[in-house]
Amino acid sequence: MNNLACRIGYFLCCLLVTTISIADDGYRLWLKYDPLTDRAIVKHYQSSITSILVDGNSETIDVIKRELAMATSGLLQSKIPFINRIEKNGTLVIGNINASSIASLQFDRSLLQKSEEAYLIKNMIVKGKRCIVITSRSDRGVLYGVFYFIRLLQTQQRIDGRDVVNSPAIANRILNHWDNLDRTVERGYAGFSLWDWHRLPAYVDQRYHDYARANSSIGINGTVLTNVNANAQVLTPFYLEKVKALADVFRPYGIKVYLTARFSAPMEIGGLSTADPSEKNVQQWWNDKVKEIYRHVPDFGGFLVKANSEGQPGPQNYKRTHADGANMLADALAPFGGIVMWRAFVYDNEVPVDRTKQAYNEFKPLDGLFRKNVIVQVKNGPLDFQPREPFHPLFGAMEKTPLMMEFQLTQEYLGFATHLAFLSPMWEECLKSKTFAHDKPSTVAEIISDESRQYQSTAIAGVANIGNDRNWCGHPFAQSNWYAFGRLAWDPFSNSSQIADEWARMTFSNDQNTIQNIKSMMLPSRELVVSYMTPLGLHHLMGWNHHYGPAPWIKDKPRVDWTSVYYHRADSMGIGFNRTSTGSNALEQYQQPVRDLYESLDKCPDELLLWFHHVSWNHKMTSGRTLWEEMCYKYQAGVIGVNNMKTLWDKTRAQVDEERYNAVKQLLEIQYQEAVWWRDACLLYFQTFSKKPMYGDFKPAHTLEYYQQLEFPFAPGIKPKW
Amino acid sequence: MNNLACRIGYFLCCLLVTTISIADDGYRLWLKYDPLTDRAIVKHYQSSITSILVDGNSETIDVIKRELAMATSGLLQSKIPFINRIEKNGTLVIGNINASSIASLQFDRSLLQKSEEAYLIKNMIVKGKRCIVITSRSDRGVLYGVFYFIRLLQTQQRIDGRDVVNSPAIANRILNHWDNLDRTVERGYAGFSLWDWHRLPAYVDQRYHDYARANSSIGINGTVLTNVNANAQVLTPFYLEKVKALADVFRPYGIKVYLTARFSAPMEIGGLSTADPSEKNVQQWWNDKVKEIYRHVPDFGGFLVKANSEGQPGPQNYKRTHADGANMLADALAPFGGIVMWRAFVYDNEVPVDRTKQAYNEFKPLDGLFRKNVIVQVKNGPLDFQPREPFHPLFGAMEKTPLMMEFQLTQEYLGFATHLAFLSPMWEECLKSKTFAHDKPSTVAEIISDESRQYQSTAIAGVANIGNDRNWCGHPFAQSNWYAFGRLAWDPFSNSSQIADEWARMTFSNDQNTIQNIKSMMLPSRELVVSYMTPLGLHHLMGWNHHYGPAPWIKDKPRVDWTSVYYHRADSMGIGFNRTSTGSNALEQYQQPVRDLYESLDKCPDELLLWFHHVSWNHKMTSGRTLWEEMCYKYQAGVIGVNNMKTLWDKTRAQVDEERYNAVKQLLEIQYQEAVWWRDACLLYFQTFSKKPMYGDFKPAHTLEYYQQLEFPFAPGIKPKW
Repeated sequence: MNNLACRIGYFLCCLLVTTISIADDGYRLWLKYDPLTDRAIVKHYQSSITSILVDGNSETIDVIKRELAMATSGLLQSKIPFINRIEKNGTLVIGNINASSIASLQFDRSLLQKSEEAYLIKNMIVKGKRCIVITSRSDRGVLYGVFYFIRLLQTQQRIDGRDVVNSPAIANRILNHWDNLDRTVERGYAGFSLWDWHRLPAYVDQRYHDYARANSSIGINGTVLTNVNANAQVLTPFYLEKVKALADVFRPYGIKVYLTARFSAPMEIGGLSTADPSEKNVQQWWNDKVKEIYRHVPDFGGFLVKANSEGQPGPQNYKRTHADGANMLADALAPFGGIVMWRAFVYDNEVPVDRTKQAYNEFKPLDGLFRKNVIVQVKNGPLDFQPREPFHPLFGAMEKTPLMMEFQLTQEYLGFATHLAFLSPMWEECLKSKTFAHDKPSTVAEIISDESRQYQSTAIAGVANIGNDRNWCGHPFAQSNWYAFGRLAWDPFSNSSQIADEWARMTFSNDQNTIQNIKSMMLPSRELVVSYMTPLGLHHLMGWNHHYGPAPWIKDKPRVDWTSVYYHRADSMGIGFNRTSTGSNALEQYQQPVRDLYESLDKCPDELLLWFHHVSWNHKMTSGRTLWEEMCYKYQAGVIGVNNMKTLWDKTRAQVDEERYNAVKQLLEIQYQEAVWWRDACLLYFQTFSKKPMYGDFKPAHTLEYYQQLEFPFAPGIKPKW
Repeated sequence: MNNLACRIGYFLCCLLVTTISIADDGYRLWLKYDPLTDRAIVKHYQSSITSILVDGNSETIDVIKRELAMATSGLLQSKIPFINRIEKNGTLVIGNINASSIASLQFDRSLLQKSEEAYLIKNMIVKGKRCIVITSRSDRGVLYGVFYFIRLLQTQQRIDGRDVVNSPAIANRILNHWDNLDRTVERGYAGFSLWDWHRLPAYVDQRYHDYARANSSIGINGTVLTNVNANAQVLTPFYLEKVKALADVFRPYGIKVYLTARFSAPMEIGGLSTADPSEKNVQQWWNDKVKEIYRHVPDFGGFLVKANSEGQPGPQNYKRTHADGANMLADALAPFGGIVMWRAFVYDNEVPVDRTKQAYNEFKPLDGLFRKNVIVQVKNGPLDFQPREPFHPLFGAMEKTPLMMEFQLTQEYLGFATHLAFLSPMWEECLKSKTFAHDKPSTVAEIISDESRQYQSTAIAGVANIGNDRNWCGHPFAQSNWYAFGRLAWDPFSNSSQIADEWARMTFSNDQNTIQNIKSMMLPSRELVVSYMTPLGLHHLMGWNHHYGPAPWIKDKPRVDWTSVYYHRADSMGIGFNRTSTGSNALEQYQQPVRDLYESLDKCPDELLLWFHHVSWNHKMTSGRTLWEEMCYKYQAGVIGVNNMKTLWDKTRAQVDEERYNAVKQLLEIQYQEAVWWRDACLLYFQTFSKKPMYGDFKPAHTLEYYQQLEFPFAPGIKPKW
């Protein structure tokens, strides 16, 4: 009888689950909590988790209870009771170290010393019962522990005898939204801004809660709501009320709100005649404004500032330095514990010999001049989020200034939300780069997580790829970049394969073959984009302004460093930007032995060759092919690789719901067509310089002129003109 | 044993259903198919529907099968088999009249004569078995019948012995999307455009299918994809490929695609030096362009055109008439069966004495001059989608020209997607207005559904309120306007109470009390908006350009008819626009006895008083109050009514899922606050003319100056400037 009941119950479950899975629109991200399919592990969980005791009283504790109820009822399909006293084996005991249920327990509290956010998961006997304790110094640390524990369930790992101590290597893990107040998103490809400013503060969309849940589940603890190309309006009381409403939603999830500060705000909304940071009334205006912000948002995180870059106002308008500007804001924020994140992505109106040198040239001399609560935000590479760049030389250069990393999740230069490109390996490549700063190998990861010197704090930023699309990120696989950013921000020493594995299990299926196929798609995907867009160290060949599609022929624009020809420098002799000592000597900004490695035509790795060298078309590569042949080979390899992704995806069909299966299938087909477009357009164009026949088994479908005349006036993500 | 199994199964269902209902984001609209709760009716259905035979072979037939499978498995929680032979009582027999299972049956085929889309649902004995037959002359008619049948189940009505014949009173039932190619939506308040032009044609979002399903379920059979303020780019091959992809999705659902034609397209994308409709090369260009469109979309519906209005180009640029322009396009479309919908919403650069007169003045003289496949699209009222207008005088004026109705679903002037305003009663009011055209009472509904004269076709348009918000329309209740438009377009003689009942049952609950409460909110809601925004025939007092919030003080704008003072004409004597014979005499455009009714200060109904008359502040109203007192009373009544909606909504809490309950609760609170704002700002302003004390129990929270200085630079839905 029980057996039949079970079978019928199971059938109904399957029926409904199937119904749900047919309609999976991706909204639930990696927090799906669909029933687990491995019956043995479910049994193990059911005996290991018989009741849940959550001790404490805060909004964060409420979040923990809700999340655990959702996760257990969904994953295990049983309602596990929340209790107040430990009476059974298999009780989850959850609370911060001061909660009465935890305070009396014996365990090494120094394990949690490193951070308020560190958590401990420990199998213990409590009141004579086998329990699993999840604790931390703070409720938000407990929440991180709970999400870690739920992840164990989602990925079907055993939970007995598995003690865990975990603390973040970087203190501030922040998303940067390039969202405008009109809800357009600069470089946004997943619809429009999440923030419905018009209906805030009184209408609080459920989506804000789910956004916070998702971030919290991967350890992101800050969000900059507005575009670095800032509008001062967001600092007016009208908008601060709205910002407060968002901050109130995010707070229980451990997430602080930050804003972008437009440097000229004192003039635009303050009625002053100057924004000169040395003027008393300007300083006073910012002091008052900051006080006003903290009245709305008591745990306000601080400002992100883009100044004197791409037309944005800044201290240089008044012959002051970046340090002068940053310090003025830092002084206003310091009494409240706020920080200034000052972007090093600068270039002024004088076009330099080599744009990649400018950040170093401007910021290196300022080393040591910034306030303690200023942190300089540096992009991973010296140019601008290209598919491949060397690490930014500033990471090896600043002795006395904390630096934070700026990664870009939104795929401005990697195929928008149409191309599958798992970016974790790109970020890992950067984080593992050896800078040789401080006379040690010092990887970038070590630099940005370094708390050993007098730096007040550490930080990492990711330019968000999140919009109001039903699936948040436009491409189902783009969610993996949000996920990976959070995981790497927490632990910049972790590896991409592990991250991909977790994400794929939670997002698609625990089926071993499916995981294997999906990982085989994800892990090489960024390298494929490099191959079919900008192989061998080429960079910035994308369409002008919108950056969509290939356009290596771009020239004659208002600035020479806004053209493609400036970067590839192809001529009848060869191709590439000579940044060695015989060229722009950008290499002098790197420490030894990095400098020598890249300076040498022979030792410079293939993947950065044309970044640093102008190389003859006939140059023999390590493969034995000439440079021209190697370029053809690489472009074609990228195309073949995308085709391979299509084959791998087809194999997942049985394990993936219809909606997402079809979405990815269609997107991969577009990616394939666009990879072919990139290959053909770029090689036809470069062929006009190399004068050599195509190498390899492919033939462009159109003439170069065809590709050159294509126009995309409404490509998404462009700066709006209103 | 069975009993226990049942109970467990039932429990599991409830559990999952609960989980689903907690997370109801409104995406499923009125097609939710959650399990029915009335056990008796479910038993009735289960015995009446034991198997389903769908006979036919087309994409539409596939749609029918999918929809029935979803609906029955969801609503009845049982998998009803699809079969090929009738073997049991309770078989649904579905197919068009030529399908072999239907062709042999005895029934009166003349019932389906009126329209290809008419359907018949008939209880019959077929092959000795009790069957329910759903048939039509076309597969899309069958689909409408199936959706009707599903609606019976959703609303828990008995299906035995209930024969139905149903045919649409209007042939073309069309949504107008004011969507731009950059995905902004003019007057859109539900996010941004559904059409992801960038990733079309290769990426076909699931949402397009669900959009088509929703439309088809309520009988909408056409969609204009692009804004009437048109961009010629959509007519280029690059975009026509994308249009084709959408048309291919919509076709199986019986939905035709239309485009807006920018009159100057021959110059902008055709390289011609003129767009003069009398020029041969211009005519040829359009002929060729139309051929090209039909190569992409063989069932293309035709063009919607806004010409010589608000700066749009048109035939008058070349001293040609609207008829000349429309006929040129009509001639190009005629060979393919396409139509031209030419908008009568015109006003030229010369500001007229009374803008409401212009459409009549320009179009009345053209009566009889249009080609047969031209239909003139007229807004419900003579101004511009105000909360209340009299019906448009053109509906009583054109003897030889078919007119189509243009309603506005998107709440440009009725509180955006923030205010709950069920618009069906407003449309019903217009449709039931007696025009006295053709020397008969002739209601507007009769005029637009009149096929008795030589009109080739009839049509109705609704300006869509649909965007990429998760719940499609921004406000959960705004979905009811999409629903009601479809239902009224099919049957303009139906009534709002019945429509509200259906919608509320399918969208929220079949619980009788809940339905009653929800209907009590919906049915008076539009009248409340009239009361707190523009009572007694006032109009166009909204904020300039964005139309958000009260701004009766607007003056000194580029055009006098873009100001509020032009419309309300308040002075020390009184208020209102004199459109009688002593004023602009707009009334002369109406037939008798309408004209006399409105001309008389005594007989003119209160609700249109200030539309037609300039009335003394001391004028005694039928209520016994003076005009000024009545205005105060009305504004306050609106506020009180919104408060009452809040109370009614609170009562639904137990029957409505948490997410939508909270969303509506928050939105009602905003609506209440904004109703107060409207009341206070308008009355304070009008008080400066009336010089009388406030009447009633309320006190404005701020000064008039406070309200006047409010600014909303990023209010949604404004025309973008890029």
